[in-house]
Amino acid sequence: MKPRRLFGCLLATALLAVAAPVSPQAPVAPARQAVIDELVVANHILANEGVVDGYGHVSVRSPVNPNRYFLARAGAPALVAAADITEYDLDSKPVTNTSATGYTERFIHGEIYKARPDVMAAVHCHCLEVIPFAATSVPLRPMYHMGYFIGEGVPVFDIRRVASITDMLIETPELGRALAQTLGNKSAALMRGHGAAVVATSLHLVVGKAYYLNVNARLQLQAMQLGGGNVTYLDPEEAKKAAQTYERSWDFWKSRLPRN
Amino acid sequence: MKPRRLFGCLLATALLAVAAPVSPQAPVAPARQAVIDELVVANHILANEGVVDGYGHVSVRSPVNPNRYFLARAGAPALVAAADITEYDLDSKPVTNTSATGYTERFIHGEIYKARPDVMAAVHCHCLEVIPFAATSVPLRPMYHMGYFIGEGVPVFDIRRVASITDMLIETPELGRALAQTLGNKSAALMRGHGAAVVATSLHLVVGKAYYLNVNARLQLQAMQLGGGNVTYLDPEEAKKAAQTYERSWDFWKSRLPRN
Amino acid sequence: MKPRRLFGCLLATALLAVAAPVSPQAPVAPARQAVIDELVVANHILANEGVVDGYGHVSVRSPVNPNRYFLARAGAPALVAAADITEYDLDSKPVTNTSATGYTERFIHGEIYKARPDVMAAVHCHCLEVIPFAATSVPLRPMYHMGYFIGEGVPVFDIRRVASITDMLIETPELGRALAQTLGNKSAALMRGHGAAVVATSLHLVVGKAYYLNVNARLQLQAMQLGGGNVTYLDPEEAKKAAQTYERSWDFWKSRLPRN
Amino acid sequence: MKPRRLFGCLLATALLAVAAPVSPQAPVAPARQAVIDELVVANHILANEGVVDGYGHVSVRSPVNPNRYFLARAGAPALVAAADITEYDLDSKPVTNTSATGYTERFIHGEIYKARPDVMAAVHCHCLEVIPFAATSVPLRPMYHMGYFIGEGVPVFDIRRVASITDMLIETPELGRALAQTLGNKSAALMRGHGAAVVATSLHLVVGKAYYLNVNARLQLQAMQLGGGNVTYLDPEEAKKAAQTYERSWDFWKSRLPRN
Repeated sequence: MKPRRLFGCLLATALLAVAAPVSPQAPVAPARQAVIDELVVANHILANEGVVDGYGHVSVRSPVNPNRYFLARAGAPALVAAADITEYDLDSKPVTNTSATGYTERFIHGEIYKARPDVMAAVHCHCLEVIPFAATSVPLRPMYHMGYFIGEGVPVFDIRRVASITDMLIETPELGRALAQTLGNKSAALMRGHGAAVVATSLHLVVGKAYYLNVNARLQLQAMQLGGGNVTYLDPEEAKKAAQTYERSWDFWKSRLPRN
Repeated sequence: MKPRRLFGCLLATALLAVAAPVSPQAPVAPARQAVIDELVVANHILANEGVVDGYGHVSVRSPVNPNRYFLARAGAPALVAAADITEYDLDSKPVTNTSATGYTERFIHGEIYKARPDVMAAVHCHCLEVIPFAATSVPLRPMYHMGYFIGEGVPVFDIRRVASITDMLIETPELGRALAQTLGNKSAALMRGHGAAVVATSLHLVVGKAYYLNVNARLQLQAMQLGGGNVTYLDPEEAKKAAQTYERSWDFWKSRLPRN
Repeated sequence: MKPRRLFGCLLATALLAVAAPVSPQAPVAPARQAVIDELVVANHILANEGVVDGYGHVSVRSPVNPNRYFLARAGAPALVAAADITEYDLDSKPVTNTSATGYTERFIHGEIYKARPDVMAAVHCHCLEVIPFAATSVPLRPMYHMGYFIGEGVPVFDIRRVASITDMLIETPELGRALAQTLGNKSAALMRGHGAAVVATSLHLVVGKAYYLNVNARLQLQAMQLGGGNVTYLDPEEAKKAAQTYERSWDFWKSRLPRN
Repeated sequence: MKPRRLFGCLLATALLAVAAPVSPQAPVAPARQAVIDELVVANHILANEGVVDGYGHVSVRSPVNPNRYFLARAGAPALVAAADITEYDLDSKPVTNTSATGYTERFIHGEIYKARPDVMAAVHCHCLEVIPFAATSVPLRPMYHMGYFIGEGVPVFDIRRVASITDMLIETPELGRALAQTLGNKSAALMRGHGAAVVATSLHLVVGKAYYLNVNARLQLQAMQLGGGNVTYLDPEEAKKAAQTYERSWDFWKSRLPRN
């Protein structure tokens, strides 16, 4: 399913839900709860597979209102429970859980959702293998089909170019917008001295992209050590054709979660 | 036991099973079920030892009919159960489980079984350590006796040479045949921008070869970093003599599987 | 909270505890036990996250008496229990558990607490990723905000400069003082052919610093392999601003401890 | 305790046991069983810590008869049970479990025990980090005190120098003797295209040496990548002084074994 189509489909669902003369919440609640439950699983998978550690976060756009997104309140992803999931408007102001402390960097999510109607889910991580790439001028390139989206190019955001000396964090709407601008229409942007932002048209897809972004970075470093300048990356057209759903990865990663 | 002898032995068993005036299925069912059960274990081992992740697959030729092979229906190897195992003919058409979705790349298996009567089992993996080698012109070489079969040479299959721009997958009989041709009479072929195909005369052996292909690749990269051009690989004759059964590895890996 | 302020606060608590006409021990015992319990957790986390193996240790200054510190008796950090925690004076003489065998290198802790009133907790580890840096003249540099404190500089202590040929261990007050002198006002010092000493204003913070010191070292090696001399480290001013509490890491690591 | 002294002590115990008019077996059985139980634990630790995989073995000289040693029958170390432990004479002929299949490479152990009266325990492993060193002319050097014994020098055994083209295995007394000769009075010898042999004056010590031999190899590769030719290794005299018992490692590793 293509991004535009998925978005349109979800938008239609949302509009229907709003327009139809239904009892309040009854029809939308199941979809809302389902996406919250999946978001909890996404948090746990990212931690269990080493894409995030105690820090990092993952969000999903509301399936019933494209001007809202869900994100846990501030805390370690591995420990997120459904009750921690907060609904935000696109200015990253909490609509639910208003007394809870939010991630100071939630503007990464809000501003990307504003700028990119096709994006339905986003991850921010300090994924280790990409940090060295974010610190050099060596561009990430797609090593294999699982990293297909890297063929779009992975721009590097340098916070210093827009805000001089900072604590490196995306703590304002302005910084979020600047990051979204660097991201452009790509799947991922590296953040110099910090990590990465990854987006996709679904939660499963963004988890897969974040995971394989990291794996691909390791493979590329090894290939460059092995072959020097003579590394054959996926051709940009191959990369486009090789689009993945990562659905089997999701099933696999979910099955590996520690049982409580 | 040599490949030819093993194959002959299994073939004889199969012919006997067909020729003898026995009650239908009674004599062949145990062997069939046993190999299916082993194939489930092989799936779990490959996932648990990191040779495959959510993607990749392993097949085994039918012990009672050399024109058939067993392969799970599409899904993550770690989650494969006996009921998922499907019997295919060598054109990779399902004979059982006909309503299930098969791996789109099952032609890797079918076409290799056609081209290589000695092959009784095959693995397709995106094994991480070999991807950098598949992206360069550096040939894999045997670092130690556990990687003995690498002494035969490990050809690299570039799908672009036979099919121009693709999604990198072996989704047709033609592509399967081209891969089998590149594989030739070897134990393994790398697939540029994709992974590897590994074959052997038994299921235990193919699991061992896939595992140690990956380990050997890592060791070779390290050795080249350490010694530059001065790395001593196994002599081709040493490699031949050093053939392994990997039976102890199988026992070890099986004992490490998570208990349900 | 700044080091000085924290220290002043704890000192005040301690003085009050001593000065006030309270029933002996009643008011101070809870704080004392709480810090001992946290120290046990810190030991387990460091072992579980691979910062220490069978060797290495972590201490915390007494919350009720700045001239005392707590450190387990000699043993593997993973196996430390509350009963193993010993109270030492700053000359590293045991005040409790006097019949137990102490770490021969406890002078690392005692002498640093003497020299650095701001330090409330210390780790000594053979953290693997830093050993290569301790063996070369390549200085550690901050790769990302999680390694912010590396921006202060990480001096390398060479025991040979102060004591000629030794067994490499800090087994005397004199060697402890020499190490503390090399450490100066920094967060960490590497120890040539040995490991590192890491300090902080709290137990949670020192565990985080030790962990990310190790991670940062690995990232830096990778970045240097990737970019050669063209690696962009955090600007010293960025590093200062990027100070972390690592509280979410602590929660995450604690949740990952094996349950007995 | 020095090797010679330990050996003398054990020898004396053995002689006493033989000479004293005691009921047969009664006094010696406990020591014998204790060492067998420890050998089982050593097998499990080596597998659990990744020093061996499905292959590799560890032996210990009999505490009651220096002309005997204990070694499991052929099998994966992780799966060894007390009943698998076989007593061998120094010609590597089984004295117990005579109907069981022994490791074909047991001559590594027997011939080393013959040549080295000080050796009380031996490990043979395909420890991964040392294989690249065994394939190059780069000598292993001690990176830190935990690898102190590497300061003695780690010779590399090339089976081709004594036996031309082989399957790389030490399957005869002659090859065992040649390996023992290369080992000389050192703690470890690498085996080209194969792995390593490690010896020590006790079972705990040999497990520690095998483990840290492997770790040190990884650290040295990293240091050489970082510092090129400018790596500071332990001074030979430092290495001598830095002798370890690894007792805390043993406790730690034992605590990490999976519970049945």
